[in-house]
Amino acid sequence: MRSDIEIARSVEMKNIADVASEYGIGFDDLEMYGKYKAKLGEEFLKSRKENKKGKLVLVTAINPTPAGEGKTTTLVGLGQSFKQLGKKAVIALREPSLGPCFGIKGGAAGGGLSQVVPMDELNLHFTGDFHAITSANNLLAAMLDNHIQQGNALGIDTNAIIHKRCIDMNDRVLRNIVVGIGGKADGVVREDHFVISVASEIMAILCLADDMNDLKERLSNIIVAYNFNGEPVFAKDLKAVGAMAALLKDAIKPNIVQTLEHSLALVHGGPFANIAHGCNSVRATKIAMGMADIALTEAGFGADLGAEKFFDIKCRKAGIAPDCVVLVATVRALKYNGGVAKDELSKENLEALKKGIVNLEKHIENIKLFGVPVVVTLNHFVTDSEAEVNFIKEFCESRNCEFAISKVWEEGGKGGVELAKKILYTLENKESHFTPLYPDDMSIEDKLYTIATKIYGAKNVTYSPAAKKAIEKAKLLGYGNLPVCVAKNQYSLSDDQKKLGRPENFDINVREAYVNAGAGFVVAITGSIMTMPGLPKVPAAEAVDVDENGNIVGLF
Amino acid sequence: MRSDIEIARSVEMKNIADVASEYGIGFDDLEMYGKYKAKLGEEFLKSRKENKKGKLVLVTAINPTPAGEGKTTTLVGLGQSFKQLGKKAVIALREPSLGPCFGIKGGAAGGGLSQVVPMDELNLHFTGDFHAITSANNLLAAMLDNHIQQGNALGIDTNAIIHKRCIDMNDRVLRNIVVGIGGKADGVVREDHFVISVASEIMAILCLADDMNDLKERLSNIIVAYNFNGEPVFAKDLKAVGAMAALLKDAIKPNIVQTLEHSLALVHGGPFANIAHGCNSVRATKIAMGMADIALTEAGFGADLGAEKFFDIKCRKAGIAPDCVVLVATVRALKYNGGVAKDELSKENLEALKKGIVNLEKHIENIKLFGVPVVVTLNHFVTDSEAEVNFIKEFCESRNCEFAISKVWEEGGKGGVELAKKILYTLENKESHFTPLYPDDMSIEDKLYTIATKIYGAKNVTYSPAAKKAIEKAKLLGYGNLPVCVAKNQYSLSDDQKKLGRPENFDINVREAYVNAGAGFVVAITGSIMTMPGLPKVPAAEAVDVDENGNIVGLF
Repeated sequence: MRSDIEIARSVEMKNIADVASEYGIGFDDLEMYGKYKAKLGEEFLKSRKENKKGKLVLVTAINPTPAGEGKTTTLVGLGQSFKQLGKKAVIALREPSLGPCFGIKGGAAGGGLSQVVPMDELNLHFTGDFHAITSANNLLAAMLDNHIQQGNALGIDTNAIIHKRCIDMNDRVLRNIVVGIGGKADGVVREDHFVISVASEIMAILCLADDMNDLKERLSNIIVAYNFNGEPVFAKDLKAVGAMAALLKDAIKPNIVQTLEHSLALVHGGPFANIAHGCNSVRATKIAMGMADIALTEAGFGADLGAEKFFDIKCRKAGIAPDCVVLVATVRALKYNGGVAKDELSKENLEALKKGIVNLEKHIENIKLFGVPVVVTLNHFVTDSEAEVNFIKEFCESRNCEFAISKVWEEGGKGGVELAKKILYTLENKESHFTPLYPDDMSIEDKLYTIATKIYGAKNVTYSPAAKKAIEKAKLLGYGNLPVCVAKNQYSLSDDQKKLGRPENFDINVREAYVNAGAGFVVAITGSIMTMPGLPKVPAAEAVDVDENGNIVGLF
Repeated sequence: MRSDIEIARSVEMKNIADVASEYGIGFDDLEMYGKYKAKLGEEFLKSRKENKKGKLVLVTAINPTPAGEGKTTTLVGLGQSFKQLGKKAVIALREPSLGPCFGIKGGAAGGGLSQVVPMDELNLHFTGDFHAITSANNLLAAMLDNHIQQGNALGIDTNAIIHKRCIDMNDRVLRNIVVGIGGKADGVVREDHFVISVASEIMAILCLADDMNDLKERLSNIIVAYNFNGEPVFAKDLKAVGAMAALLKDAIKPNIVQTLEHSLALVHGGPFANIAHGCNSVRATKIAMGMADIALTEAGFGADLGAEKFFDIKCRKAGIAPDCVVLVATVRALKYNGGVAKDELSKENLEALKKGIVNLEKHIENIKLFGVPVVVTLNHFVTDSEAEVNFIKEFCESRNCEFAISKVWEEGGKGGVELAKKILYTLENKESHFTPLYPDDMSIEDKLYTIATKIYGAKNVTYSPAAKKAIEKAKLLGYGNLPVCVAKNQYSLSDDQKKLGRPENFDINVREAYVNAGAGFVVAITGSIMTMPGLPKVPAAEAVDVDENGNIVGLF
């Protein structure tokens, strides 16, 4: 079997300017990065962003398993399918992070015949957006520590520093560090932490900012620390905002690339959904809506994390509303949720499927809570039996969801035509009555309780003393009206990754909480989820190389 | 007075492809990064690199002072001057680092009417080379710590780790840190250090590598640590080389931009000269020699650091030989070296000039030690008096150096025509008998002694016990034949930055030493020089902003 990068390389790409022109984007609207990547210029962005005529479709998934679900593959495939149907559709997705690319997960540009390309460049530095975010984040940190070193006029309490350094790497030894060791000139000693760049508040800000002015406003409002009086110290107090904005000047412009069938893809921003808000940039989504009749975007991992935050954070903040949700599942993942071991997933097992389908059931129920019609799709594997597929199909249809098999991995756009038609049918015949899960003026604890009980299926929410105190403080400072961004493991609806299926009778424990005042949400960290991943015993990096022709090999 | 960025923005740039075509570079040879930046493709590089027909001119300077010398400005201006003279000349210079750009030094793209543009992009992310280097460096570090965490099969001694993390930022609190704090899953506790990316061995490797194969070979040979038996552990032992090479795939291709007068400039690699080897990439220099009759490159800060390493490391390793050296000085800097305070430099002071000119004298003597003809140029300021200029002119000519005033800052290329003619005269009439300062087979200590006594004017070299031990070990492991890369403050010929002029009767103290086996030199850290700078009380970052038109302001 050919690897994704081999497939990607076997297809001849078009010049991205030629792809763009088919979508009404002129050459002068582009800032080219080589022949196959470009950023959209500010003039074009301004001209399209308030247009928003296109219908908005969210592609999300059941809880992920080691068996793989193919959410991104489905989205990329759909971009190709709609093109085959002659429909004006544009997809928007997130940029991959270097960290997991060299760790366990591999790249994130789709798979098989449904990939965005150039796959290797997308997975490595792409157009440098993540590097810009990392630099802006770490400039703020350096200016913060320098301020303390140079006399600490703002009275920053080194035991109450919120802003963390970041790096786009899975590097567990940087989770908890002590900085400033050495002599007088080497800074003030304190505990510090690195997060992976995708979990940085700057990443969230980049993804939620409407334009440069909004970006600067949000950067200004980042709480970097509290002073000795317990009052917040902001990024603007450190005079760091202008330089951070300068570093992000190009990064806030959405990128375009093509799929293997030369349909257009916007790729912009990349917060993880487990430890961040999990959606591509608002700008990319609005541009997609402004350019096309159908804008398709994704939010991962599972719908409990990605879709909830898409609805309650991104849509709420951006003033946009989804018209349809595509929920991706696989026979294999549902059997895995039903208790089947990973190496037994190829065998038909209707009992396990019946047991595991409760995970899909819960996600369907959840999305209906937001008032949005659901289309379920099975990302097809050759080992899926007809009985298994029929069982899922009937299950979905009995819940008033359209259903389609997707074969975009093996067939490209053709394999998603049936699904695309079901989406079109839903957009034309089923009305969306989108409403967020909770109102702004609900208390932070009630918001968390609502998400935990209604979406995750928990009994209750418990808090560490530190988290309780941080939430009290957030309310006192006037941040009680912000939405909540839950950090939670992606594998389970609960905060314990071993509880598969549809767990019941569990509590969600909030271990840590802090305000991302610039991004505009309160972060609640649950269970044992980490904002800095580690590398596995054999990192994926070990397989990566540059061959004698200068091509990258071993990326998957 | 207009700032550099205002001047830079007032000149309309040409498309870089049009600039390139005047130098025989076709559009297919380019990888465009927007309209004004490009990388040279591998095919073009291969076709030109063994050509090396052009004469090689090094632009260097006296020891830098707060008054400013204008080495880069002179080089950029000369590129313009030779164009005005109708000569085929190409300049090659280093890429600026973000760190000093936000710290005290400001940007590094020339000044006034002699700048390379787009100035703001050059000074910020440019084409992402430094980010790629930082990522490759930190991937290696993450894989190293992960190896220890996952069982430490190689027996790495955590007290003998050589490889350091890096960041392209002035961030003093990261000089000395403790990583791996927390629980069992959070890595193994050890002391670690961040260096600024320009001091990373990966930066040196990128600058010295001839092609991708050579790059991989060099990456393989990086000593990351010693094991419990005291044997070196290499990057190849961690299986990190392929992934690092993949991250550097584009970074090893030289970049091109234009000067304000649309002459071509190669900009590639950027090790500092105080804490690294201080030269742009070998590839860029060889390409410049392969493309043009005259290739001009720079090595900073002062000639004691930049030029010495250019001769003894870069030229030795690359098999190239300079035909002429341009030594940049200013009346103001020489008076400063003669003891005049910074705010008194505008007044004529022949006494101070006579006292301070010993700094220039020493650098002239030093370059002659390498057998290369010298042209001295005064970077002109309006406050320079005729008597002062004449004094310097006569001083130089009595030492058989051509002399010319340069007004490239205020006049652009026109202001450097006289200097360019002196360079041409020198190339045509004075033969270079280039030879490195010391042979390969001299001992490391003798190499250091030779550099310290002959170039710096020291009496002797002293060693810390740790440095002594490290050098003994290097010899034992077979690295005794490598050249030495001295890290030393740039302001003085000595290792004490307060000793201006031409200090005598001093020792050079080597505090720390280690082998950069991939780069191919032994690093000797002297005095109190740091491989991670700090920010000043008021960082330059505070003045940087993005204006309402989306333009970056406040960069200088």
